[in-house]
Amino acid sequence: MFTVLKTDGNARLAEFTTVHGVVQTPAFMNVATQGAIKGGLSAYDLKDIGCQVQLCNTYHLHLRPGDKLIRELGGLHAFTGWDGPILTDSGGFQIFSLAALRRIREEGVYFSSHIDGRKIFMGPEESMQIQSNLGSTIAMGFDECVENPAEYDYAKRSCERTARWMERSKKEMDRLNALPDTVNPNQLLFGINQGCTYEDLRIEHMKRIADMDMDGYAIGGLAVGEPKEEMYRIISAVTPFMPIDKPRYLMGVGTPGNILEAVERGVDLFDCVMPSRNARHGHLFTKEGIRNINNEKYKNDLSPIDPQCGCPTCRRHSRAYIRHLFKAGEMLAMRLCVIHNLWFYNTLLAEIRDALQNGTFAQYKAKYVDILDTRI
Amino acid sequence: MFTVLKTDGNARLAEFTTVHGVVQTPAFMNVATQGAIKGGLSAYDLKDIGCQVQLCNTYHLHLRPGDKLIRELGGLHAFTGWDGPILTDSGGFQIFSLAALRRIREEGVYFSSHIDGRKIFMGPEESMQIQSNLGSTIAMGFDECVENPAEYDYAKRSCERTARWMERSKKEMDRLNALPDTVNPNQLLFGINQGCTYEDLRIEHMKRIADMDMDGYAIGGLAVGEPKEEMYRIISAVTPFMPIDKPRYLMGVGTPGNILEAVERGVDLFDCVMPSRNARHGHLFTKEGIRNINNEKYKNDLSPIDPQCGCPTCRRHSRAYIRHLFKAGEMLAMRLCVIHNLWFYNTLLAEIRDALQNGTFAQYKAKYVDILDTRI
Repeated sequence: MFTVLKTDGNARLAEFTTVHGVVQTPAFMNVATQGAIKGGLSAYDLKDIGCQVQLCNTYHLHLRPGDKLIRELGGLHAFTGWDGPILTDSGGFQIFSLAALRRIREEGVYFSSHIDGRKIFMGPEESMQIQSNLGSTIAMGFDECVENPAEYDYAKRSCERTARWMERSKKEMDRLNALPDTVNPNQLLFGINQGCTYEDLRIEHMKRIADMDMDGYAIGGLAVGEPKEEMYRIISAVTPFMPIDKPRYLMGVGTPGNILEAVERGVDLFDCVMPSRNARHGHLFTKEGIRNINNEKYKNDLSPIDPQCGCPTCRRHSRAYIRHLFKAGEMLAMRLCVIHNLWFYNTLLAEIRDALQNGTFAQYKAKYVDILDTRI
Repeated sequence: MFTVLKTDGNARLAEFTTVHGVVQTPAFMNVATQGAIKGGLSAYDLKDIGCQVQLCNTYHLHLRPGDKLIRELGGLHAFTGWDGPILTDSGGFQIFSLAALRRIREEGVYFSSHIDGRKIFMGPEESMQIQSNLGSTIAMGFDECVENPAEYDYAKRSCERTARWMERSKKEMDRLNALPDTVNPNQLLFGINQGCTYEDLRIEHMKRIADMDMDGYAIGGLAVGEPKEEMYRIISAVTPFMPIDKPRYLMGVGTPGNILEAVERGVDLFDCVMPSRNARHGHLFTKEGIRNINNEKYKNDLSPIDPQCGCPTCRRHSRAYIRHLFKAGEMLAMRLCVIHNLWFYNTLLAEIRDALQNGTFAQYKAKYVDILDTRI
């Protein structure tokens, strides 16, 4: 159930109720690709960093350790130890970005595993079966993610096929949810909008999948090569055609600035590997901009990463210590920085919710939209 | 202050009071070589694993980030965030095991950094100055650690020199502790016994350094190539000549079985990289023996690493999940296993203390001395 509590222009403050708990939106979903957030965080660290939703990757878990094994072990919640909402992607994006020897056909995609070269077929039915075995809270329909810029004709054919794949995804998920021994019989299914950077394709596709009455809708295929102005243009074009009473999810996006722009345009959910990946290289988000902790100037700096931050890392450790840990090759460096960056993202979204509650979102956005993406 | 509370044969239950807190002995000291326990543990995780003392390495911290920088930042306690007792070694062992181009002279050792080849000189005075800058609770005298087996003549000359180095160490530490701006004016200094596997050299050396009235005494130069029976023979030979009213520390030892044997012979303090290093390869100590979590048979095993263990890892995660994390190359694998193995060691020492308290140490030792070192 998705309840909009307040709106501010197109921006929405809402509550999304699932069998694994309520998500306050706008929300950031924290990426735990292989069932663990990279950098050494466990499910038991997630509450300390303000995480509401854990996101796991279907493609990776299908290859290793295998979704059938995870089902046998009780599903992703039991496997990882996280009892809150989990979203699984469809596997589509990873097949297109990681797998080799892809052949796309009407029935689905033939590809080779990036781990051992094993030949695999995945279509909408297979993706739903895998996600059903994983037992996530929210499954994603199976789509093709096309890199930008794309030819109009290919984009059109691809997103027509993705629309047919959404229909098949829904049908298969309905069947799986009704089985007596399914891991999560209340598994939700979100549709995914595609159409590259072509507004007419995006809108037509969105209308078509909106008719399928899925549990939420995502905008896929953005932040895959196009300038950010193009991304904002497409979000503005497509959100008016997304059901107002269902969550809207912008997949794989993005910087703090991107998130502020997308919230303004009516998006509710986000995910991105950027905060954890940047953290592992010592690139740290702060209210003053992005700090590179490897910089010589932090050598004897006793301040925390961000003096305005209340995360477990900033409450306890200095820039000088964290810089030393990176230079010394200590794993703790990455862990402390991943904690900081994910806390930053989850807190950014919490502050956005507060601003929407208080009617101050426009000021909040104006204050931070540029500065947070700037390297200092 | 070191107070023996109870004895059982040569074994001692005692309390060691320092300015940074009381250590219940026998105790295991947890190795944080570069100011962090490898595997991503922070100082704030140490209380969760039962750690009483953190051990940091003088050689590593002198090279990187530099002891002068750490002094400027307030010493190792402020730098790492651990407020309990910290022991620093003298640097001697690492110079002999890691550094290149060593030349040993009466004044000290000339060597090249293993990081950048930089030429460095370290003698007793330099080692004390570095440890004083680090501000540890307990400093170690500067010694030469000779690999076993060693020629008698070399062993004799080396341990005579080490005795002279201990005198110089004590004199320099007394001077440093009296300076007005020293980081820890109450820094303790332990002497180190050497003499390879020759009982006469060991005993003569021990008598000589016992006369120096240092704050505690370590047995160094064991577990460096000799069979374990040789090690036990030397411990038995030397402990009768160690002051009964000062802590006794067996450096760099060892397996759970080694520790039980040494406690029986009157040793109070231990340190070893084995639990954390083995953990990072998935070799896990349990009450049933050493388990290799990478084994195929744990693929779908929902039990914790050790069903008898109460550590944060065993309370939360299954063998199947941890094995998956290793296969997937997730850092969390190492962190969970380091937590388990260090908890195991700290708990082993706590159980030894309980057994000494209850007069059941002999039974406890008999039950576990072999099984804990066996691979299963």
